Amino acid sequence: MKEFTQEERYRVLKSPDEIKDLHQRNAQSIYRQTYHVQPVTGLSSDPNGFVYHNNLWHLFYQWTPWGAVHGLKYWYHVTSKDLVHWSNRGIGLSPGDTFDNKGCHSGSGIALKNDLYLFYTGNHRDEKWIRTPYTCAARMDENGKLHKLKEPLFGPRPDYAEHQRDPKVIYHKQKDMYYIFIGAMTLDKRGTVLIYQSKDLLSGWQFSGELKVPGYENFGGMWECPCIENLNGQDILIFSPQYTKLPERGNSTNHNVYLTGQMDYETLTFTPSGPYHYLDYGFDFYAAQFAANVNSNDHAIMISWIGLPDNHYPSAEDEWEGTMTIPRVVSLKDGYLYQQPPEEMKLLRKEPIPTEGHLPDTCEIEALFDGEDTDFNLFTNQNSHGLKIHYQSDTHTLTFDKSHMKLRFNQQVFEILNIKLAEDLKNMQIFIDKCSLEVFINDGKYTFTARLFPVKEEHNYVSDHHVKLTIYPLKESVQDNFIL
Amino acid sequence: MKEFTQEERYRVLKSPDEIKDLHQRNAQSIYRQTYHVQPVTGLSSDPNGFVYHNNLWHLFYQWTPWGAVHGLKYWYHVTSKDLVHWSNRGIGLSPGDTFDNKGCHSGSGIALKNDLYLFYTGNHRDEKWIRTPYTCAARMDENGKLHKLKEPLFGPRPDYAEHQRDPKVIYHKQKDMYYIFIGAMTLDKRGTVLIYQSKDLLSGWQFSGELKVPGYENFGGMWECPCIENLNGQDILIFSPQYTKLPERGNSTNHNVYLTGQMDYETLTFTPSGPYHYLDYGFDFYAAQFAANVNSNDHAIMISWIGLPDNHYPSAEDEWEGTMTIPRVVSLKDGYLYQQPPEEMKLLRKEPIPTEGHLPDTCEIEALFDGEDTDFNLFTNQNSHGLKIHYQSDTHTLTFDKSHMKLRFNQQVFEILNIKLAEDLKNMQIFIDKCSLEVFINDGKYTFTARLFPVKEEHNYVSDHHVKLTIYPLKESVQDNFIL
Repeated sequence: MKEFTQEERYRVLKSPDEIKDLHQRNAQSIYRQTYHVQPVTGLSSDPNGFVYHNNLWHLFYQWTPWGAVHGLKYWYHVTSKDLVHWSNRGIGLSPGDTFDNKGCHSGSGIALKNDLYLFYTGNHRDEKWIRTPYTCAARMDENGKLHKLKEPLFGPRPDYAEHQRDPKVIYHKQKDMYYIFIGAMTLDKRGTVLIYQSKDLLSGWQFSGELKVPGYENFGGMWECPCIENLNGQDILIFSPQYTKLPERGNSTNHNVYLTGQMDYETLTFTPSGPYHYLDYGFDFYAAQFAANVNSNDHAIMISWIGLPDNHYPSAEDEWEGTMTIPRVVSLKDGYLYQQPPEEMKLLRKEPIPTEGHLPDTCEIEALFDGEDTDFNLFTNQNSHGLKIHYQSDTHTLTFDKSHMKLRFNQQVFEILNIKLAEDLKNMQIFIDKCSLEVFINDGKYTFTARLFPVKEEHNYVSDHHVKLTIYPLKESVQDNFIL
Repeated sequence: MKEFTQEERYRVLKSPDEIKDLHQRNAQSIYRQTYHVQPVTGLSSDPNGFVYHNNLWHLFYQWTPWGAVHGLKYWYHVTSKDLVHWSNRGIGLSPGDTFDNKGCHSGSGIALKNDLYLFYTGNHRDEKWIRTPYTCAARMDENGKLHKLKEPLFGPRPDYAEHQRDPKVIYHKQKDMYYIFIGAMTLDKRGTVLIYQSKDLLSGWQFSGELKVPGYENFGGMWECPCIENLNGQDILIFSPQYTKLPERGNSTNHNVYLTGQMDYETLTFTPSGPYHYLDYGFDFYAAQFAANVNSNDHAIMISWIGLPDNHYPSAEDEWEGTMTIPRVVSLKDGYLYQQPPEEMKLLRKEPIPTEGHLPDTCEIEALFDGEDTDFNLFTNQNSHGLKIHYQSDTHTLTFDKSHMKLRFNQQVFEILNIKLAEDLKNMQIFIDKCSLEVFINDGKYTFTARLFPVKEEHNYVSDHHVKLTIYPLKESVQDNFIL
């Protein structure tokens, strides 16, 4: 596996020719996906700038061109008409200017009349490698080309740690005001959100204050990727707390949670209506963000990185790493977020195959459970249990154990995770795509998302009579072409 | 002499009681001045926020309350009706807020209608002592109280070194535009000026670019305290270049120079009409600034710190240090700045004393020279030459040699300085005030300013027949009272 020097990781891309061969090598990887957005080359991480605009879904991802390594981050641009079929569109934001000399880091987008605007963190480092994060903006022109504003909207606040990033911009109609939420760390290393406001989208930004979330004053050391949505009058705050361990999350210090409640923009207080929940219970899920301009009261569209900071994945052998979830339709019911694949995912279904133990490397599985204890193992072969899924009915505990897979990775973080259901296990909708697994449990009240790298032999499954399966092989919906 | 820890130097002043005793000790110093603005306690350095407003001259100085030491800087406020009589008014700007936690550093002022606004550098340091300079503003209310804006106007640019400070704000009438000049250092350690502009005084500031001064691309490592004025259609740029030695300036790396020329705000180019000149040829002169709102075409008012960065002075034994020059009336003639004391200084004159060799510790001396070689020594006694002033007529060289004074200080920087006159030595107007010397030479075409600390015995002068003297003892015009 290639080792990178810092200089190599932060190299500026001068010409597509520099990574054309890398793309070809990446595309030959047996783990290359077929209906998930994945890096055109190298590494992808957070989703960015997810916006519905002029009948098109625009999505960007944090991208390091050079290989399976975090380094100089670009925004790579993909679009879709239906949230299922995605096209590579080329580089969105390129770093290397004054305020983003060491990366265009994560952020969000918003459409305003005929224009699409993107808000990102300009990652500046000086010669001593001291970081200064700027909140920057860019406008997309009618040809899809992005034009960065010459100056940032604002710099970091000195009364918080250097960790101030991931601007989420929203428009508050009643107040006729724009707000930016910035993920931040206080000087005493507590995670929080800084709120800025402006009457204008591209100027006049003023610091409003720190978001108050009663009960969450000391909840992790940094809240990355804060995002807020309103569904049927309820506010939903999602964020990715770091530097803390949380229950049932093994040794991981990277999480993604949501709170439902009420956001008061006068007092800058988000009052939760209940406890936090994991946005996903899987091994690899982080930096989720809601799409902007969906304009629906009853659902939001969310996407996430299937991966975690500080973790690495076996596809690094093939010089690439990272993928997005499929976009998820999110609704609110009884205080829980329910996540569903987009309806259009059904268009990818081929004819169901006989349920005789063969597991296609790209498929959707509908699983109906009778509520009894059950074992349901994926990616098995004659010598291995593969991914063990066990349901313990008396405690309503669903267990995912990846420790029996042939390719093991991030073992020090966790290999076994439990979900404590509030009710019986009823159903799962499972999406497998070469090296990713997404499970929607009990109509999407819980989801479990992970990278898994089955070797060639791990192509079976084992189930008992407590589950009834339908297995649909899936068509491709994401081309793996080299557009730069 | 008291040694200060960093913590002591950067201590926030909580109550006047903490420095009342210090003031009393300072006020008993035999070097305490009588017609110069000096620190109410502790240390003063740069003049700041010099503005004429509502028939009053407002001046502030960089002030560390605790003793003869640079540390947490305040702006201390003094006012005058005539540029000669000054009253202590109390603290102007207090540091310790978010953006100026380690000091309200230098800056300028401007009056707009009925309001006075001050622009300063918020000196922020984080827990690792890494500095971030902010350009901040404050408004003076009708009671003379200053109200700092909650947010800075702008932060530092990452494509320049951390040395970005000393905002000089001006209003450009033809363009109906405000400009701020910021003294700066490039990443490759060259001194320069950054220019910002805004239609509004307190918001909307945008970076315009770096000031171009043809021929001065590599002139010192930092240009502190840039300031610009226009006299009769000619622009005058003054600044204090650091980190370089200049001709006839010994080992000093702190200077104060001026250029005359034309400032083009479209191209951000100052085109000099001739070589630079020293703003003053003395041992101790730095950070000069022009007063704002003088509204004269033919003269400006300038004031300066009698002192240099990195230098220390014998009054430190008495726990204080620093003083201002008398304000100077500046006009332009044949490409030279001419400096004169304000006409009102004559009000301080007592009856002239007989010119018999006695030198009052507070006096004005008019000296007329015949143009021949001459020796004219001040602060002499029977055992010492005091300050030797020698004029060498064939080379038009005027030499000041302080190495014979009893109290020597900053010897490593320089003790002997020459001024090469462009013509014969004709006259001097000399102001002595306990521990300061200001000499206006040849109608103020050259000035020589220094701190000198004559001991009690050094109260004579020696002159020959090539000079004709008139000596006026002077009345006090600056009270040394404790106003906080």
